[in-house]
Amino acid sequence: MRNEKLVAFGQRVREIRKAKGLTQENMAALAEIDRSYMGHIERGEKNITLTKIYQISEALGIDVTDLFPRSTMTNNSAPKKD
Amino acid sequence: MRNEKLVAFGQRVREIRKAKGLTQENMAALAEIDRSYMGHIERGEKNITLTKIYQISEALGIDVTDLFPRSTMTNNSAPKKD
Repeated sequence: MRNEKLVAFGQRVREIRKAKGLTQENMAALAEIDRSYMGHIERGEKNITLTKIYQISEALGIDVTDLFPRSTMTNNSAPKKD
Repeated sequence: MRNEKLVAFGQRVREIRKAKGLTQENMAALAEIDRSYMGHIERGEKNITLTKIYQISEALGIDVTDLFPRSTMTNNSAPKKD
């Protein structure tokens, strides 16, 4: 279940959490997520669900979209219109 | 599992899919997600995982953050610093 997007997401969560001066334990309590599960999320070992993504953004006091690493997206999978 | 955030997310997916002129079946195929599962997602009946959120954004050719409804966030769950 570990993949680069999950790892990037977890790193972003950890980075923001630390910037806010929170321990993993503090944040887990604020987000009402099990502490060991938070560890798995930050290491990109769990495929987190949308409701937990929102719980984390609310615990950190940020917009949910701020949890996503800035992308330099390439648009090559856009649906063709013809 | 149905909650307002899942419903809002699903509505946003449907809105963008239709704006791109895709049927649910087209999009399910592009995203490599089961068609009936896509229906559940659009109706907010499934707590979608992060990897599937990325599959949908890639299928639609948009940034993952564009899948989230614009929020007018109130910051009242921000961690206290004292």
